[in-house]
Amino acid sequence: MHIKKVRVVQDALDANATIARANRADFDRAGVAVVNLMSAPGSGKTALLEKALHHLDAIEVGVLEGDVQGSFDADRLARLHVSVTQLNTDPGFGGECHLDANMVRSALPSIPLSDLDLLIIENVGNLVCPAEFHVGEDARVMVSSVTEGEDKPLKYPLMFRTCDLVLVNKIDLLPHLDFDLDRFLANLDAVHPGVPHLQVSARTGQGIDAWRDWLVQIVSRRAVPA
Amino acid sequence: MHIKKVRVVQDALDANATIARANRADFDRAGVAVVNLMSAPGSGKTALLEKALHHLDAIEVGVLEGDVQGSFDADRLARLHVSVTQLNTDPGFGGECHLDANMVRSALPSIPLSDLDLLIIENVGNLVCPAEFHVGEDARVMVSSVTEGEDKPLKYPLMFRTCDLVLVNKIDLLPHLDFDLDRFLANLDAVHPGVPHLQVSARTGQGIDAWRDWLVQIVSRRAVPA
Repeated sequence: MHIKKVRVVQDALDANATIARANRADFDRAGVAVVNLMSAPGSGKTALLEKALHHLDAIEVGVLEGDVQGSFDADRLARLHVSVTQLNTDPGFGGECHLDANMVRSALPSIPLSDLDLLIIENVGNLVCPAEFHVGEDARVMVSSVTEGEDKPLKYPLMFRTCDLVLVNKIDLLPHLDFDLDRFLANLDAVHPGVPHLQVSARTGQGIDAWRDWLVQIVSRRAVPA
Repeated sequence: MHIKKVRVVQDALDANATIARANRADFDRAGVAVVNLMSAPGSGKTALLEKALHHLDAIEVGVLEGDVQGSFDADRLARLHVSVTQLNTDPGFGGECHLDANMVRSALPSIPLSDLDLLIIENVGNLVCPAEFHVGEDARVMVSSVTEGEDKPLKYPLMFRTCDLVLVNKIDLLPHLDFDLDRFLANLDAVHPGVPHLQVSARTGQGIDAWRDWLVQIVSRRAVPA
């Protein structure tokens, strides 16, 4: 008789991948596109969401907010009348520094998936571990602020390599910084050749329309039957 | 016969504390003061070190650079003729997001401890996990840039609560930001009442003398026999 061999799952990332696929199946059933939004602390994820969601009336959006503790960002976004769910990581090992697939899965019963076109998962502010844990998303967007320096793609390559769009934020501050945008973009291209980027400012509104259009396009692409 | 009871060490943080104490004993024997320097990515740790160490001729300083990969910051600091040791965390679980006591211990044979008055450990840029792992330091300094927003003490309370000095960096950018310094300082005081802070700018040099004086004072305090 032919014996089927099953490889034993090897580590935490294998388990994470298994749960991410289960999340993915739920998102597919509900027909919702999912974006994993990541950055360092204070890069402007929430501010860029506030701006993009403000005039995004054509589609139904939900946000899953990941934070070590508190609900500061969720409170800001709730003013926009989008569905916001708060996920705190502090019951973990001293406060987990990232979301993983299982944490996202634990939040799914609180999210009205079938009412949504787009779910945005705002990850914990961190450039290391969030990149290692897929949560079942369609796309990864990372925000990199020009105040953080040109070297960041080289210092945190996994994060920049695994994202589908880079929002170069706080572009309005360029005249006041010793930041070499061309060098940043060259470093980004060295780490992730051809990855698209948008130059944006949550403060002045520069690039926000393009960022909003990108989100709508993610939903449209998803709506086309495979 | 009286039985001595020994509590079994319970978790990774217990193991870390044990190794941190061993590091501490080595630092004591060598008579070196140790500062653990922490911040989010791109807050300006390395730039503030460059400025402070440039005219710090009275004491012998070494730097242990913690990064996921590469030696960009170590290369910058090596130009100052201080002893620089690079510690990369990428052999860990997909790249560790923090230094722990054992990683620091593994670097000690490469550091000329007995020649130093002060060892500065530049941690991995992250506001979560570095706060959880003591490495045997005398003091913790964290850098928080005004570009990161006033809410950071409330969102990452452990980091702000366990530090002995906060460097509020990029203070030269205040006129160009919607950053409320009083609100930031109130949030800081709510999380860590009475913690000292210095308003600094690596770019303009504001506050750098006070930051350098603070480092010298840490060494002086240590040099006084207990």
